[in-house]
Amino acid sequence: MHDELLAKTSLRRMNQAAAKQISQDEVIILTALRLGMTAALAVAICGAEARAQMQFQNNLMPQPTEMSLGSGALALDSTFAVAVPGASDARLTDAISRAVRRIEMVAGLRHAGRGVTGTTRLIVKVDHPSAPVQSIDEDESYSLRVTSSGAEIDAPTELGAMHGLETLIQLVQPTASGYVIPAITIHDTPRFRWRGLMIDCGRHFEPVAVIERNLDGMAAVKLNVFHWHLTEDQGFRMQSRIYPKLTAMGSDGLFYTQQDAKDVVAYARARGIRVVPEFEMPGHSAAWLLAYPELASGTNPIEIRREFGVSAFAIDPTRDATYVFIDHFLAEMSTIFPDAYVHIGGDEAPAPDWKTNPRILAFMKAHDLKDNDALQAYFNSRVLKIITRLHKHMMGWDEILTPGLPKDVVVQSWRGEASLFEGAKLGYEGVLSAPYYLDGMRPAGVHYLADPLPSSSDLTPEQRKLILGGEVCMWGEHVYVRTIDSRIWPRTAAIAERFWSPENVRDVNDMYRRLAPTSIELESLGLTHLGSEDAGLRELAATENIDALRTFASVLEPVSFGERAHIQHTDQLTPLESFVDAVRPDPPSRRWFELTVKRLLADPRGDTADRIALAARLTQLSEAVPATRQQMLASPRLEEVSVRADQLMQLTAMGQEALQYLANGQKAPAAWTQKQIETLDEIEKPRALVRFTFLPEMRDLVKTVSD
Amino acid sequence: MHDELLAKTSLRRMNQAAAKQISQDEVIILTALRLGMTAALAVAICGAEARAQMQFQNNLMPQPTEMSLGSGALALDSTFAVAVPGASDARLTDAISRAVRRIEMVAGLRHAGRGVTGTTRLIVKVDHPSAPVQSIDEDESYSLRVTSSGAEIDAPTELGAMHGLETLIQLVQPTASGYVIPAITIHDTPRFRWRGLMIDCGRHFEPVAVIERNLDGMAAVKLNVFHWHLTEDQGFRMQSRIYPKLTAMGSDGLFYTQQDAKDVVAYARARGIRVVPEFEMPGHSAAWLLAYPELASGTNPIEIRREFGVSAFAIDPTRDATYVFIDHFLAEMSTIFPDAYVHIGGDEAPAPDWKTNPRILAFMKAHDLKDNDALQAYFNSRVLKIITRLHKHMMGWDEILTPGLPKDVVVQSWRGEASLFEGAKLGYEGVLSAPYYLDGMRPAGVHYLADPLPSSSDLTPEQRKLILGGEVCMWGEHVYVRTIDSRIWPRTAAIAERFWSPENVRDVNDMYRRLAPTSIELESLGLTHLGSEDAGLRELAATENIDALRTFASVLEPVSFGERAHIQHTDQLTPLESFVDAVRPDPPSRRWFELTVKRLLADPRGDTADRIALAARLTQLSEAVPATRQQMLASPRLEEVSVRADQLMQLTAMGQEALQYLANGQKAPAAWTQKQIETLDEIEKPRALVRFTFLPEMRDLVKTVSD
Repeated sequence: MHDELLAKTSLRRMNQAAAKQISQDEVIILTALRLGMTAALAVAICGAEARAQMQFQNNLMPQPTEMSLGSGALALDSTFAVAVPGASDARLTDAISRAVRRIEMVAGLRHAGRGVTGTTRLIVKVDHPSAPVQSIDEDESYSLRVTSSGAEIDAPTELGAMHGLETLIQLVQPTASGYVIPAITIHDTPRFRWRGLMIDCGRHFEPVAVIERNLDGMAAVKLNVFHWHLTEDQGFRMQSRIYPKLTAMGSDGLFYTQQDAKDVVAYARARGIRVVPEFEMPGHSAAWLLAYPELASGTNPIEIRREFGVSAFAIDPTRDATYVFIDHFLAEMSTIFPDAYVHIGGDEAPAPDWKTNPRILAFMKAHDLKDNDALQAYFNSRVLKIITRLHKHMMGWDEILTPGLPKDVVVQSWRGEASLFEGAKLGYEGVLSAPYYLDGMRPAGVHYLADPLPSSSDLTPEQRKLILGGEVCMWGEHVYVRTIDSRIWPRTAAIAERFWSPENVRDVNDMYRRLAPTSIELESLGLTHLGSEDAGLRELAATENIDALRTFASVLEPVSFGERAHIQHTDQLTPLESFVDAVRPDPPSRRWFELTVKRLLADPRGDTADRIALAARLTQLSEAVPATRQQMLASPRLEEVSVRADQLMQLTAMGQEALQYLANGQKAPAAWTQKQIETLDEIEKPRALVRFTFLPEMRDLVKTVSD
Repeated sequence: MHDELLAKTSLRRMNQAAAKQISQDEVIILTALRLGMTAALAVAICGAEARAQMQFQNNLMPQPTEMSLGSGALALDSTFAVAVPGASDARLTDAISRAVRRIEMVAGLRHAGRGVTGTTRLIVKVDHPSAPVQSIDEDESYSLRVTSSGAEIDAPTELGAMHGLETLIQLVQPTASGYVIPAITIHDTPRFRWRGLMIDCGRHFEPVAVIERNLDGMAAVKLNVFHWHLTEDQGFRMQSRIYPKLTAMGSDGLFYTQQDAKDVVAYARARGIRVVPEFEMPGHSAAWLLAYPELASGTNPIEIRREFGVSAFAIDPTRDATYVFIDHFLAEMSTIFPDAYVHIGGDEAPAPDWKTNPRILAFMKAHDLKDNDALQAYFNSRVLKIITRLHKHMMGWDEILTPGLPKDVVVQSWRGEASLFEGAKLGYEGVLSAPYYLDGMRPAGVHYLADPLPSSSDLTPEQRKLILGGEVCMWGEHVYVRTIDSRIWPRTAAIAERFWSPENVRDVNDMYRRLAPTSIELESLGLTHLGSEDAGLRELAATENIDALRTFASVLEPVSFGERAHIQHTDQLTPLESFVDAVRPDPPSRRWFELTVKRLLADPRGDTADRIALAARLTQLSEAVPATRQQMLASPRLEEVSVRADQLMQLTAMGQEALQYLANGQKAPAAWTQKQIETLDEIEKPRALVRFTFLPEMRDLVKTVSD
């Protein structure tokens, strides 16, 4: 809803808005700037308002291709007037309006109202208007130049200008005398053309508001493809007027109307994001078959499939009626989704019926299709004809890559780089997803370092061009409206940088430093990734008093999708309001322990600050346990986590003892070490679907003080 | 959006849902129940699962008219099947479906899916269907009976049944062996027919999502009128197709489409809430006049009025064209808003033009209208004719009550009880609002004790019937999407109890005890009143690390609307993302200090627990200051609050010293006392638009240890 406010900000404001003349006193002279992507830079503040040395931070995410800092800064003591001398349309002026509003918010400025006059401080110059439908080949580059007297964005297209606006917002910095945008020159262009986020709305429905706020987040970190996974065994989420039973029978009433989808497409376009819809076939198709059993290969579902995982249901590829249906359906969808790509899924279709249904077997024999793969290839080639006739390109998961598949198909690799590169060698375009599965609950740093196209790969230059980019995947088994944001963000911002920035931008420490302010920016756009944990804890404890519980939860994170599915039988009706759902993957505590313990162990007898900080943190954690235990006693929904409270007491005691040995320069007795290792082994076992964030560091500590 | 999920839960689930047989072991025998509305009740848990004594809490808000606890409880170990043997329609089954989903969430249960079979555990019996448009006279009573084998709600209408469902949800309790609904019999009926919340969407626009989540909150505490203040000098928020310029010129593009409004009306009806739209006339009408200057009395606005407060603009009451316009407009609005009442505002119309415009003066003379009041009365009587012809009742603020006004008008009193009762004595129906202005930032307990119709009033029984009820008012000068929830909730829940429960339910302590879990319930409905403070602090500090800042902010609350407007010039473009906007009115710290210091001073040398707790809290606060100061240095947006950080150090030192005197049984020297009082006087001055929540208690402490 926050977005609605921003989106509707009157255009007229822009035309009449203006900047107050910047007082010379308030201009900041940056004296000691170092170029590049890292580090805090010391700058001196001059003039009457100068009060202190200040730190200038490069908070940009993703990092631009080229950047050079100038001297001085543009002071933001009122909102600036904007001129758009080149190509311009409502989309661009809306984007400028939203950007100005966000700068006002970051800098705590009065909102620009109509009737303000003044000097133009921002010029946005676009060479030529964008095509009505955003193409994968649209030039997204831009240049941004900020001086103490104004800022100018130059871009070949609106899309580049919009990226430049996002950069401008991220440049806003506090100084002792107010907010500024530092003098800087940026030339920026993305490394990959396809920078996507897939959200699975099939297994759990995500309301339009969730989609929209995630589109805002995507735009902020320059992602440009929203891959909308709209159908699954567990739900058909897209309304068809031709085949209304698809949602009437297969959605529990939880689906997007055609108007909803059009609104999402428009919302995305306004933010420079393409929408690629996915309609899974021939597998993951129970919801189609529940509504239209005549499409099935033999086995029909009799109700919405609540179970996750690969099902036996498959669309029958042998009947012409199947293709008539798909033709009509995709033609209808093409009136809603203008993008040049359609995703047909295609993964995980074991289709046991294809091995037993005599009619299908006869068909395979007649068409010389020797196995399931060959039959799926036949299916794909017929669907491809339909999609081609709709003037679109077909996209699918790894499994669509079968011998004889025409080259005009994009393969999305969930199997890994090897599969992606194999496709490229065969001449297929590809998008990498395997290392970007968010439900693995891995740290941002791990995703960050996975490169879709490392320079070390053995692809030829021609083959390298076939790697379009990457896509983050948010699968829907264990997420819903309350928790999905914290699974997507902020980690996706780090991956977005991987897709945009040069390959050699891979300093994990610096990434995490910049991820922190980016996460706040994402929250201010309406995303709930930072607030949802506390909300979940309050609900679980049924009280607003969660200081201790919050501290306890801060060192726990959810286990991976695979571990959870292994431990707990989950299906679509499993409640997702447990402790594991409240806590976040890769919380700040993980990184804090990692850095602090690493520094400490590198020089255990040196500066005591880290030892003191670590001891204090352990004390804080152990002190939180008694109140947490009380709340667990009072709330059956928290009870399962009590084992982790007991273990936290063990861990903090272990840590304090290790620090004591460290401080004294002593080695621990072997018996102590043995006991700690047994304790750690026990604590490492999955319990309550959550894991501690600092176990490796505890092992390192124990190891260091042991012989 | 959360709501969307709930709302769309399939009806089919209800028909097939079922309860697992409750194991005798899991049934809880309540042994020591005390009737009435207060207190924690000790109950023994029997059976194999019994583990501990547990506390049973009466968390109901509002309190029911009659309630008697039975023995045993309905165990919630799976979701129950629901039977609806009486009158039923989609609204009721939807409401049941949402209620079941909420019970599942509170109790951490698996969601009811289709295909579940079992015993019916909830019967909802309604005598007759509701009218298509909810009437003020609809019977809202219900009976609820819960035993260990099931629950039954009986009500004359759906509306009562829906209230019963809300009560049922609030009855869910944790026990050592899981969640239960205690055996209980409730007969409940509201004290007042009109229990409203007004939201001003004119001064700042509130997106539909804000309205909808607030409607959810209203339904949870049994409010039944949403008074939608749709027009103001600063914005015309309701789309008219006949007069499109109203929003085209007067809304900054921030308005409700007719479809939006219809959606809100439907959303409200689904929750048993009437929607009374307000279109302000003849004053507060700059937005009308900007679009249609021909309606003006002389002075015309030339742009959207950003300034708040009473304006000089007024609709011209002397021209027939005015009434043609209003007639057409209200007729159009009546196709969107089916409610029997229309609010025409009518307040604060000084209309200086009426004293100077020769044409208007001539008209007044010709019609024997001796002053502005008489002219407004003339205006009202003509508008009343229009509204009557639309088969609706007219409602307006105090000022519409002028001699000669027909009796078929409801007066909403913002001036106070005296004005309300005066109206009743003249034969007018009335709704009290004066004591329920949320922007006064007063504690819930103050609002709570203000009774719309105290038994001590001198009204006759006939006159008493004219007091329809009360309305909470959320004026929009200083709230917007991010902050409005924390201004409305949870305080409005306490006022809702005033409107619903018997007059003698007025134990402030018990109200606050029940308000705490109610606040959590409201958050789980999607309201942001608990999470928005942290989100605001994170944005202000530009970091996720707000532990210290949160502690600091916990003892500060916003000054009242009046104080803020006095100190700071605010208008529609003033940013509302400052520290004052982040902190909440009546935060828990206020109540905590009040109770703790009261107990301590009642017996200063007795139990030391309160003294220890108070000292610990003061220590926690003072320890939070250094890190808070650091963040203030780094964020210009926080800088203005640094004076309060300094003062918090003074306050905590003062408190610790006073506690020391108290512990030692000593009196403080006069000089010390003098200094503390001066300090307190200084701290009491408005600074940074926030005030400390515990100054009265500090004064009491100082006073107690002084001679």
